[in-house]
Amino acid sequence: MSATTFPPRTTSAEIELGKTLQPKFGSDGLIPCITQDVATSQVLMFAFMNAESLAKTLSTKKATYWSRSRNKLWVKGEESGNVQLVRELRTDCDQDVLLLKVEQTGAANASCHNGYKSCFYRKLADLDDAALKLQFTAERLFDPATVYKKK
Amino acid sequence: MSATTFPPRTTSAEIELGKTLQPKFGSDGLIPCITQDVATSQVLMFAFMNAESLAKTLSTKKATYWSRSRNKLWVKGEESGNVQLVRELRTDCDQDVLLLKVEQTGAANASCHNGYKSCFYRKLADLDDAALKLQFTAERLFDPATVYKKK
Repeated sequence: MSATTFPPRTTSAEIELGKTLQPKFGSDGLIPCITQDVATSQVLMFAFMNAESLAKTLSTKKATYWSRSRNKLWVKGEESGNVQLVRELRTDCDQDVLLLKVEQTGAANASCHNGYKSCFYRKLADLDDAALKLQFTAERLFDPATVYKKK
Repeated sequence: MSATTFPPRTTSAEIELGKTLQPKFGSDGLIPCITQDVATSQVLMFAFMNAESLAKTLSTKKATYWSRSRNKLWVKGEESGNVQLVRELRTDCDQDVLLLKVEQTGAANASCHNGYKSCFYRKLADLDDAALKLQFTAERLFDPATVYKKK
């Protein structure tokens, strides 16, 4: 995989029931990507890819996203060491979403910049609580201050 | 839950490590939502919610999205009968994504309009294959032609 172009979108039937990846990048060039732990199916994070990051993900087998805040390619774990090794790539029915299954690596084995295994570390404590209180469901695996350098 | 308004976004610290749901709806009023099977953690689908659909999801416990193609509230399963009963709602670190854990119900127990349990029924057969061939990973649970009426 060296190309950063992907097959053109063809017919709805081909997109939905065909056997070729034809990812739909939005008008901003991005496609949403859900990332799961390959072993446990825990959803680790949600981010975006552009064609270049998808191509790089496939060629390196390291999950590579597009950082909208920094406006640049983002090799997950390049700073923290918590690299995601890609084991599987899926797409949905209309091929406008990607799903990665990864082996989360690194000393802390954490996906979230806040030091948690998954970014989804809080849930509504009670679905009927109008105060919308969140409950933490996980322990921190690292202290962000010791992992990320101040810039 | 009757309100269709949610708490205002406060500080980054409160959003990322606080205990109140402060969902970020984009400039289009929408927030992405990942939906998982509560029992197996399989990712079933990906869709969007607006404030009204999130409020309705919480009040009815039936996953209710915003259909961008039809530009209206979309009670999942209202036509096919494959309703999703909400068991848990999570958010991510910066609260701009939601994660639902649901019990998928209905005769076919399928999330996808193409008749599959999950919308993510295809994977790349080989991550190194430049032809980007997809492999089906699931069997169809229903025939869409018999479930959805032509309109």
